[in-house]
Amino acid sequence: MTPAKCSGFQSAGIAVGIKKNGGKDLGLIFSKVPASVAGVYTRNRVQAAPVLLCKERTPSETCRAIVVNSGNANCCTGHAGMENAEKTARLIAADLGISPDSVLVASTGVIGEPLPVDKIEAAIPRLTDALDADGFSNVAAAIMTTDTVSKMLSVNGQIGDKTYTITGIAKGAGMIRPDMATMLCFVCTDIGMSSTMLQKALSQAVDRSFNRITIDGDTSTNDTVLLMANGQSGAIVETDVQAASFQKLLDELLVRLARMLVKDGEGATKLVEIIVKGAMSDGDAFQIAATVAHSSLVKTAMFGEDANWGRIIAAAGRAGVPMEPEKIDIYFDDVQMVRNGIGRGEKIEADATAVIKKPEYAITIDLHMDSGEASILTCDFSIDYVKINADYRT
Amino acid sequence: MTPAKCSGFQSAGIAVGIKKNGGKDLGLIFSKVPASVAGVYTRNRVQAAPVLLCKERTPSETCRAIVVNSGNANCCTGHAGMENAEKTARLIAADLGISPDSVLVASTGVIGEPLPVDKIEAAIPRLTDALDADGFSNVAAAIMTTDTVSKMLSVNGQIGDKTYTITGIAKGAGMIRPDMATMLCFVCTDIGMSSTMLQKALSQAVDRSFNRITIDGDTSTNDTVLLMANGQSGAIVETDVQAASFQKLLDELLVRLARMLVKDGEGATKLVEIIVKGAMSDGDAFQIAATVAHSSLVKTAMFGEDANWGRIIAAAGRAGVPMEPEKIDIYFDDVQMVRNGIGRGEKIEADATAVIKKPEYAITIDLHMDSGEASILTCDFSIDYVKINADYRT
Repeated sequence: MTPAKCSGFQSAGIAVGIKKNGGKDLGLIFSKVPASVAGVYTRNRVQAAPVLLCKERTPSETCRAIVVNSGNANCCTGHAGMENAEKTARLIAADLGISPDSVLVASTGVIGEPLPVDKIEAAIPRLTDALDADGFSNVAAAIMTTDTVSKMLSVNGQIGDKTYTITGIAKGAGMIRPDMATMLCFVCTDIGMSSTMLQKALSQAVDRSFNRITIDGDTSTNDTVLLMANGQSGAIVETDVQAASFQKLLDELLVRLARMLVKDGEGATKLVEIIVKGAMSDGDAFQIAATVAHSSLVKTAMFGEDANWGRIIAAAGRAGVPMEPEKIDIYFDDVQMVRNGIGRGEKIEADATAVIKKPEYAITIDLHMDSGEASILTCDFSIDYVKINADYRT
Repeated sequence: MTPAKCSGFQSAGIAVGIKKNGGKDLGLIFSKVPASVAGVYTRNRVQAAPVLLCKERTPSETCRAIVVNSGNANCCTGHAGMENAEKTARLIAADLGISPDSVLVASTGVIGEPLPVDKIEAAIPRLTDALDADGFSNVAAAIMTTDTVSKMLSVNGQIGDKTYTITGIAKGAGMIRPDMATMLCFVCTDIGMSSTMLQKALSQAVDRSFNRITIDGDTSTNDTVLLMANGQSGAIVETDVQAASFQKLLDELLVRLARMLVKDGEGATKLVEIIVKGAMSDGDAFQIAATVAHSSLVKTAMFGEDANWGRIIAAAGRAGVPMEPEKIDIYFDDVQMVRNGIGRGEKIEADATAVIKKPEYAITIDLHMDSGEASILTCDFSIDYVKINADYRT
């Protein structure tokens, strides 16, 4: 992995007692100069206070910091919740000597409990003291909830003789579905770019990454993706070719982070790509892929390592889009299990079963109607998923 | 319970070796005279051969028999599957001396395996020999798959001095969602009624019952509800008042059967009614109720007896319909846990927790926007659900 360090950014992550397990739960990302910033947020009608605040403050050209806590979502907390989000920004701003409006806030954790802002306030001097150019991994740790590993990636690009870096951290694990889907993701880059271009680039990259994954079909109230660009590498985007090259790198980074989220889905033991081909449109293909990817019966069969293609075709059939069942082919990786809507028997099934015993594989559904295509990443539905979510708050 | 017997009907259920556990797996319902018949079927685009056959043969005035097997869905079985469904009807018809077109066929079980029609053929003399006026309970047993108990109910009505009976049997357990929802349900009545009226009555009753329940959000390829009316009680529907009175009884019967299905949902330990009030329309209310009722996070919290209202409001928020989060109230039975979108604290939560420790309770979500209402029955998502569905075919 390339180093996570990104010119002009410092980060920190510490434990302040919001999380019950005593782990890191407060993070800070700081840019030494005003940065362009873009945001993409949950489409849930119920939105946490920090999401509402970020929506007011992005896009902009003057972002300096992102402060984030885990262990509490600051959602369904009314006026007090919004005041606590604003207060958090204000306290950070005062300590760093920057404008409160230049601070963005994010939260993740349990919904409906008051944000313990006193714990945050008491810890701010310690948090800003901990700021470090190598601190991204500490922020990545501070945003984890039911994640079992932290997620951080860094890639480099080139404009002329200038090398720029894009570093991203993310957390996921539950309440993940493709209608905007991650809990939190923060991306920093030392490229120079206007906030308008940045917003366009981020929206497109999210559509290609976090909008193509699902874990449990639920959409969080706190989903937030923020992208800051501070220009400190000296690499400044001036042409469409440069913008396209940045887009490609950003897409790649977010796709890889999205994949890490699904792989670490709550209780997940399998990472499965659902590919739909030959639909009447890309939209139809996506609808089918999403329905199969969300099906509890398909996902429990994945967990049971059962090549139960009947559940796959049944889920496809209820997606509400046109199909001719007698034309459908289904593959597990390159093993064709179903031809013209009919199973190919026990011998082929043994090959298919060998595929689904692997930790990662693809299921391809070919409708043979037209050229619509889509794919989505999902995971299995395990006994541990139920255990994790039956006990989450206790 | 009133006796299941229904004038002019005989039934039988026997074991013929289709089910791996050796249980009853072949059932027959026979009317000694031609009966009106109505059907409601799955909306899945992938439909089993027996569903396609029944759709051709209903509604009609000349139905004599329904033959049903469990252990095999006869779905995704191509032309051979359709031939096997027709052959089953033909063999039954030959044995009973009736027209093949007057026989309806239903199947439930694993998708994609050939129907072992030879086992059915060999068993038909034994099946028809077993026909008995008290045989409904044997059919109820013969249609079970992952059901833990058989479901049968009988109610009586009156037209003038004539008493009529409506007897229903059903099976459910998995692949149940409100977009038409049961695996199989067969209703016999000795009232006299045209098939046109019968079809209207059945469609309405299904909309009020099986379309208001969910277990796992999946829709089967084989869902079939059939209603036969043979007039043998002498009670003949001639007026709107008589029809309305029959409708009320039929609605009640199917609602009670639907409730039995959810209560016996795969792995279910809780029966929970999700009630939505104050929405902009009944349709909006239904959309919210269904989204909450399907949410894996809500359902695992039910299993964990966790009054996690944050997951409920988050699921409501992603239903895609207008709402103002700061107006939402949430009740567990009569305990108001959320007022104006904010939780009411730990003391009230203790009361809410007492409610959700019960095996049956209601969650009411009041949006306070307009007068739209809907409700839906659901169950929890348990470790046993995953175990049952990870191992189903093995």
